[in-house]
Amino acid sequence: VWVPVPEGSDFTPANLPYGVVRDASGRRTAVARIGDHVVALADVLAGDDRSLFAHGSLDAFIAAGPARWREVRARLFEHLADGRNERPLTAISDVEPLLPFTVADYTDFYASIEHATNLGRILRPGSPPLLPNWRHLPVAYHGRAGTVAVSGTPVRRPCGLVPRGADVERAPTRMLDFELELGFVVGAASVPGRPVRPDDADRQVFGVVLLNDWSARDIQAFEYQPLGPFLGKSFLTSISPWIVPLGALAPFLTEPPPQEPEPDPFLRAHRPWALDLSLEVELCATIVTRPNARHLYWTFAQQLAHLTSNGAPVRSGDLFATGTVSDPYAAGSMIELTWRGERPLTLADGTTRTWLHDGDEVVLRGHAGDGPARVGFGEVRGGVVRAKLGAHEGTSGT
Amino acid sequence: VWVPVPEGSDFTPANLPYGVVRDASGRRTAVARIGDHVVALADVLAGDDRSLFAHGSLDAFIAAGPARWREVRARLFEHLADGRNERPLTAISDVEPLLPFTVADYTDFYASIEHATNLGRILRPGSPPLLPNWRHLPVAYHGRAGTVAVSGTPVRRPCGLVPRGADVERAPTRMLDFELELGFVVGAASVPGRPVRPDDADRQVFGVVLLNDWSARDIQAFEYQPLGPFLGKSFLTSISPWIVPLGALAPFLTEPPPQEPEPDPFLRAHRPWALDLSLEVELCATIVTRPNARHLYWTFAQQLAHLTSNGAPVRSGDLFATGTVSDPYAAGSMIELTWRGERPLTLADGTTRTWLHDGDEVVLRGHAGDGPARVGFGEVRGGVVRAKLGAHEGTSGT
Repeated sequence: VWVPVPEGSDFTPANLPYGVVRDASGRRTAVARIGDHVVALADVLAGDDRSLFAHGSLDAFIAAGPARWREVRARLFEHLADGRNERPLTAISDVEPLLPFTVADYTDFYASIEHATNLGRILRPGSPPLLPNWRHLPVAYHGRAGTVAVSGTPVRRPCGLVPRGADVERAPTRMLDFELELGFVVGAASVPGRPVRPDDADRQVFGVVLLNDWSARDIQAFEYQPLGPFLGKSFLTSISPWIVPLGALAPFLTEPPPQEPEPDPFLRAHRPWALDLSLEVELCATIVTRPNARHLYWTFAQQLAHLTSNGAPVRSGDLFATGTVSDPYAAGSMIELTWRGERPLTLADGTTRTWLHDGDEVVLRGHAGDGPARVGFGEVRGGVVRAKLGAHEGTSGT
Repeated sequence: VWVPVPEGSDFTPANLPYGVVRDASGRRTAVARIGDHVVALADVLAGDDRSLFAHGSLDAFIAAGPARWREVRARLFEHLADGRNERPLTAISDVEPLLPFTVADYTDFYASIEHATNLGRILRPGSPPLLPNWRHLPVAYHGRAGTVAVSGTPVRRPCGLVPRGADVERAPTRMLDFELELGFVVGAASVPGRPVRPDDADRQVFGVVLLNDWSARDIQAFEYQPLGPFLGKSFLTSISPWIVPLGALAPFLTEPPPQEPEPDPFLRAHRPWALDLSLEVELCATIVTRPNARHLYWTFAQQLAHLTSNGAPVRSGDLFATGTVSDPYAAGSMIELTWRGERPLTLADGTTRTWLHDGDEVVLRGHAGDGPARVGFGEVRGGVVRAKLGAHEGTSGT
């Protein structure tokens, strides 16, 4: 290709992830990223096809289904391989990445057996760490789609109701955490009443993002019985600006860990759906963990099958996430890394953390392959800003 | 007004609820309902204002905020009061009501103390029926927005994984239930980071629907720990085709029951936000329960304040529901009415039910006031159809 790609870039010609950016004039453009540049997708396509990217949105393209995804990708390759197309590129530094798609329903799973086991041990010591349902189905809950935001969005420390002695008081969370996750973007809608087979997952899933499911553990702990997490999660979920097409990740699909007991036929796959992706979390310039996603017990194909197994369809723009990616060697959240505060982490500057402090910055990264075959997500970045304490500060009237 | 309104109609001139209908030619139209007729909203407004209802959608109008809501309502009254506007009306029987708005996030609360207490007694006998958080905050979970559908949508009995002896097997639910609820449609979006005060609820909430949160109790019971209800709920949520404007319900706002302990200042209201609404459930031509919504412990104003108390904004099109409306005298779900199957209901035809059978029809109704002051929702109707049993029946390839 004629576009320069810096050494070590996540954004090689093997990747070409999609996103939406805003330029200095405020205009939104649907783009593909290569190296440190972006290419407007409407420039790559001829005539009517440009309407796929009308209003600078990827939504119509995401909904268009696998045949169009392959076709656009092929044209993008051709465009970038043909020297005659060379023209001034837009540098990534000249644009602002935006949320890359309109999120329909957001669902968060609990797919890592190491994460579920760790939390079981931490929260229910003395009981079996995995609940009876865990090995039979991919446990999940619905999250708040309206607070999914792009990397870089400030993480305002949320306030919430927590017990203090015999009382309950509203206070800024004292247990702010990150969760390292992958998110899957549904492209093609499924048909109501027709469960998706795991081995058909690539007909429905457009691509993958890296995701930080910020969590306020004290708010969550008080609120979550019996209906699950709510305000302890819904203040913010950050995703990468780049959706890596599932096709670009095909070389890194691999066998998932063995499942015992064998899952229900609706959840059985014959193709390998685990993703061999090296992930990492940087906290204040210190890499604090490096799990690999290939250890996840439940694959995204099984999650999709489960989501639709009661007849509910998935829609274009649905986002479903893995839950915290922990593996046998490395955990993907502070609650695990510090064992709920018992074992503080020491950072490069000598300070320690049990939970996130105001001013802390968390950066998630993830990639597969190396050199010209490298495919990655770039960064999901979030800096913690102090809570707003005043009662209804900023609302009209007071 | 010059439009005839049948005696006992929910759709008096005091109501004028909004909806979207499809006519015989397939065209979608945003309408208001009066008696057994609908009026196209674009016909009521002049010039540019008609674009509020472009593409037969209410979404732009719902998002426009309280000043426009009042203005359109005033024009609608004028239009219907002025005999010179008399023209052929569209009979409700000539159109098909559609889902009246695009659902953004759907959140379901657990606001009835009688419902929460009943479920605590049924599911955790011997323990305190209310969990420690219940009186401190309105417990809730996020539901699936993509499966909110209009009244009349068939209720396909869902299949799911449930324990059978030592095994877990996939089977049609044997514990299909209804839940009688009210749903609140957010109109004006709130500002991120600025919690909504309870007493400002009428600035944000556009109107109210009647809602049936269909539930598969066996699927829910196995899946829900620790992250809450998922597939046991997400197969279908039915709402009324008619959104009753909050303004039409203003005469029926009343004091909620006393709260002990006094809630956190963020949840305290000075205006009365309970709704004096008579509700009923008809099962196979038998009225099985008649609770009143005014007994709900947590008001919708408090729910809205809680939703936004962690900084999360609400968006136009967000739908938040009360959870099952039970009161001290009447329960709003089968699991309560039959005490989880222990006390079957006897229907008018002499048959009994512990859970819903294939072929059963459930109709919810709700209204306030009488005669020309009556304001109601019409019906939320759903008929149960048998499960699809085959593995991945209907998917391509098999």
